[in-house]
Amino acid sequence: MKGFAELTTVSEALRRLFEVLPVPRPETEQSDLLGALQRVLAEDIVCPFDMPQFDRSTVDGYALKAVDSVGASPTNPLEFQVVATVFAGSRPDGSRVLKEGESALVFTGAPMPAGANSVVMLEHCSRTGDRLQVRRQVHAMQNVSRMGEDYSRGETVVRAGSVLKPWHLAAAASIGVTTIKVRRSPLVGVVSTGSEVVDAGAPIRPGQVANSTKPFLLALARQRNCQPVDLGTVPDDTAEIKNAVEFGLKRCDIILTTGGSSVGEKDLVFEAMSRVRPNTAVAHGLRIRPGRPTGILVVRGIPVFVLSGFPVAAMAGFQALVEPTMVYLMGSMEDPVPMMSGRLTRKVPNESGNRAYVRVRVSRCAEGIEVDPLMLTGSGLLSSLTKANGMLVIDEAVEGYDEGEQVEVLLTGSVFQSQSSLGSGKGPTHRSRPSDSKIRPGSLKEGS
Amino acid sequence: MKGFAELTTVSEALRRLFEVLPVPRPETEQSDLLGALQRVLAEDIVCPFDMPQFDRSTVDGYALKAVDSVGASPTNPLEFQVVATVFAGSRPDGSRVLKEGESALVFTGAPMPAGANSVVMLEHCSRTGDRLQVRRQVHAMQNVSRMGEDYSRGETVVRAGSVLKPWHLAAAASIGVTTIKVRRSPLVGVVSTGSEVVDAGAPIRPGQVANSTKPFLLALARQRNCQPVDLGTVPDDTAEIKNAVEFGLKRCDIILTTGGSSVGEKDLVFEAMSRVRPNTAVAHGLRIRPGRPTGILVVRGIPVFVLSGFPVAAMAGFQALVEPTMVYLMGSMEDPVPMMSGRLTRKVPNESGNRAYVRVRVSRCAEGIEVDPLMLTGSGLLSSLTKANGMLVIDEAVEGYDEGEQVEVLLTGSVFQSQSSLGSGKGPTHRSRPSDSKIRPGSLKEGS
Repeated sequence: MKGFAELTTVSEALRRLFEVLPVPRPETEQSDLLGALQRVLAEDIVCPFDMPQFDRSTVDGYALKAVDSVGASPTNPLEFQVVATVFAGSRPDGSRVLKEGESALVFTGAPMPAGANSVVMLEHCSRTGDRLQVRRQVHAMQNVSRMGEDYSRGETVVRAGSVLKPWHLAAAASIGVTTIKVRRSPLVGVVSTGSEVVDAGAPIRPGQVANSTKPFLLALARQRNCQPVDLGTVPDDTAEIKNAVEFGLKRCDIILTTGGSSVGEKDLVFEAMSRVRPNTAVAHGLRIRPGRPTGILVVRGIPVFVLSGFPVAAMAGFQALVEPTMVYLMGSMEDPVPMMSGRLTRKVPNESGNRAYVRVRVSRCAEGIEVDPLMLTGSGLLSSLTKANGMLVIDEAVEGYDEGEQVEVLLTGSVFQSQSSLGSGKGPTHRSRPSDSKIRPGSLKEGS
Repeated sequence: MKGFAELTTVSEALRRLFEVLPVPRPETEQSDLLGALQRVLAEDIVCPFDMPQFDRSTVDGYALKAVDSVGASPTNPLEFQVVATVFAGSRPDGSRVLKEGESALVFTGAPMPAGANSVVMLEHCSRTGDRLQVRRQVHAMQNVSRMGEDYSRGETVVRAGSVLKPWHLAAAASIGVTTIKVRRSPLVGVVSTGSEVVDAGAPIRPGQVANSTKPFLLALARQRNCQPVDLGTVPDDTAEIKNAVEFGLKRCDIILTTGGSSVGEKDLVFEAMSRVRPNTAVAHGLRIRPGRPTGILVVRGIPVFVLSGFPVAAMAGFQALVEPTMVYLMGSMEDPVPMMSGRLTRKVPNESGNRAYVRVRVSRCAEGIEVDPLMLTGSGLLSSLTKANGMLVIDEAVEGYDEGEQVEVLLTGSVFQSQSSLGSGKGPTHRSRPSDSKIRPGSLKEGS
C-alpha cells in the first residue's frame, strides 16, 4: 500500500540481473541462407581458401603487361597484338603466357591470362582484326581483383554473435556456404493480468477493456526477432498468475507479465512470483518514467519482467530492460536502431535520477529537423505512441533539455513533413512519387 | 562496345519510371494482428467509439470531488468518508453518486464513480475503517483518463499506407480490431546471369564462382518485407535470359536481374529484354558509383531492374532504385532507417554529378563518433560490406567531404568501439554485459 522502498536505476538493475542469471548457453540450429536473415550467427564463418580464388578482371577490356602501356594516350596510341579471348568462367590457364606487346580480350570476372597484370577498359581501345590500339596507360593490377583480396584463407568472414544481414549471407554464399548455424531465437512468453482485461475476439462488457498490451509485447518481441508465446490473460488472482507463469517457465527463455505491477491492493504478480521457488527478486521499482513500478525477478533461472499494464510504460520497460536481456542471452551484437537528431521545439524537464521516455514528433521543416515533444503524456494512452514517430530517451544524469537544444531521438516511424517545408498537410510522408530521401536527409529538394 | 550515350541521375530515372508504370493497385489480404507486423495497412483504422469508453482512474487511490480536497496537505489532512470500492472491470455505475466529503477506493483502470472527478493516490491517504485522511490537494481530472482522451469516435487510429509497428497493432487491439486488411507484399523475382556463376550447392570448377549476388538480392528483398522469388541462374544467352524473365513477369511485381549489365560483348540482358513486348527502356547507365551500368525497363507493365553482378554495385542500385519503387508500388510510408552522424577521418572525393555509395566504419571513440571510409573500394568485394558498418551516400550536387567534416551515414551494423575509448579490441560491440547504449548514444560511460 506504500511507495517503493528503493528505486533502482536501469543500469544497476541490469548489472544485478546479469549477476544472478545463469551463464547463457544458447542452443543452435541449422538454417538455409535466406532463413538465417536477422538470426544470430552461432560460430565464426571462416574462409577456407583465398577469395577470389584466382586473379580476375573487374572490367571488360584487354589484359596486358602494364609496363607495355607506359606512355599510351589518345594522341599516342600504342599497338598490341590480340592473341586470346578469355570468358568469365574459363578455367585459369597457365600454359599460354602473354609476351611483350601481346594482349588478350577478357570479360568481367574472367581469370587473368598468365603474363598479364592489368586490364585496359574496352572504351580506351580500338581493335582491327588482331591489331589493338591502346589509348590509355594502366598501372600494375589496375582493373584486376587479386586472389585473396576479398578474404584470405583462414580469415573470419562473419563473426559469431553477428545479427545476419543480407551482405553477411552474400559473403557466406561467395565462399560456398549453403547452411548456417544460428542461435535459437529466445521464446518470449507474455502473461497478461487484470480482471478487467478481455482478450481479442471475446465480448467486452461495460467497464472492461480490450487487451492491447499483450499483443503489443508479443509484437515487440517478434520485432526483435524473438519467438512470441502467448501465455494467456488471467484475472487478478495469485494462484492463476502463478499457474500461468509456471507453465511459461517450462518452455520460455524470458517471461513478461503485464498489469498488476503497481503497489495497490491488487499488486499480485510479485506475490505470485515469490511462491515459485527458487526465485531472486532483482529489483522492484525503477528509476524510469513512465514505468516506475516495473519489477525484475529471476525464477528458476528464467528472467521474469513484471511490466506495467499501461502500454507506454510497458514499452519503456521493454526497451530499457528486456531488449538488453535478449542481447545478453543471445550473446549477440546489437542491431542498429534508427536515430535522428533535431532541434527541440520546447523545453523538456526530467526528474533527475530518472530515465525518461518522451514521445516526440520528428518533422522536417525548412530549417532542418524539428523534435516536438507530445503534450499527451499519459502512459495509458496508445495515441501518444501512434501519433508520435520518435522517442526521446533522457538519461538519468540529465535534468532535461532546453528549447532549441539539439537532441538525438529514436525514430519509430517515418519523418513528418512540416507545412513550412512542403506547404501541404501535416501528416507523415506518403508520397505517390517517392523521393529516396530516407537514404540522405536533405534530398527532398531534388527532382522527384 | 562503348560507354553509355547518356547517364541518368537517380531522381530523373525514378521520375521517368513512375511516369511509365501503371497506377499501382496493390491487392489486399486479411491478417491476424501479429501477422500484420511490418505489413502495409490497406485502409484506415477508424475508432468506432470514444476511447477510453468511460472515465477511468489511472492510479490506485481514492476518488473524490477535487474541490473537497482544496487545502489538504501533510500538516492539514482533510477527512473523507469511504462509501464504496470500485475494481477495474466493474460496470460503470451511475446509480450511486458521491456526495460532498465522500470518497471511493478505486483501482487502476476502474471506472470513476459518479460524482467524483479526481483521484488522490494511495500514498497520500491514510484510512481507518471508513474514515479517510487525505494529505494532498488534487485538481479536477487529476489521475483520471477521460472518455475519448486516447481516440475519439470517428478518429483515424492508423492511416492506410502505414508500415504496421507494435504500437499500431496495440492501438488496433485496444479498439477491438482482431483482423487487419493489409496490402499484399510485392513478389520480387531475381534472375542471375553469367556463365561463370554457379548456384549454391553445385560443384565449382576452377574459374567459376559461387553465386553470391542472387542470395544477396533475395535477402535484401526479404529485409524490406517483400517476398523473394528465386528465378534461377542462367548462362550468358539471350534466349535463356528472356525465358527466365518472361517466367518471372507472370508471377512477380518487380524483377531484378544481376550480372550482364555492363557494355561488353556479353551485355545480353538489355538485348533479351528488348525482345519481350511491350517494353519501355527507362534508363541505361546511371549517375551512381558504384553501379553505373544499372538499367531500368518497364516490361509488360512490370519494372525490371538490370543490376550489376558486383554485390556492392547491386546494393547501390537496390537502395537507389528498387527500394523507392517498392514504396511506390505499395503506396506505403517509408520505414525509418538507422542513421548516425559522425566526424569523417579522411577526405572523400566525389565525381560531381554522381551519387556515390561509400562503405565506412563507424566507431565510437573518446571524442565522439568517427566515420572512417574504407580503402577497399572494389565493388566486387563483399568484404567492403562485411567489414563496414555503414554507408555514406554522397549526393550528386556534393563534390565530396573534407576530413573532419560532420556527415550522416546509414548504419548497417552495430557501432564499433575504438581502442581509444575502450582500450580493447577493434571489433564491433560484443559485450557479455550489454549496456543499453543503443537507446542513447553516449551511455557507455555508465555502470554496465
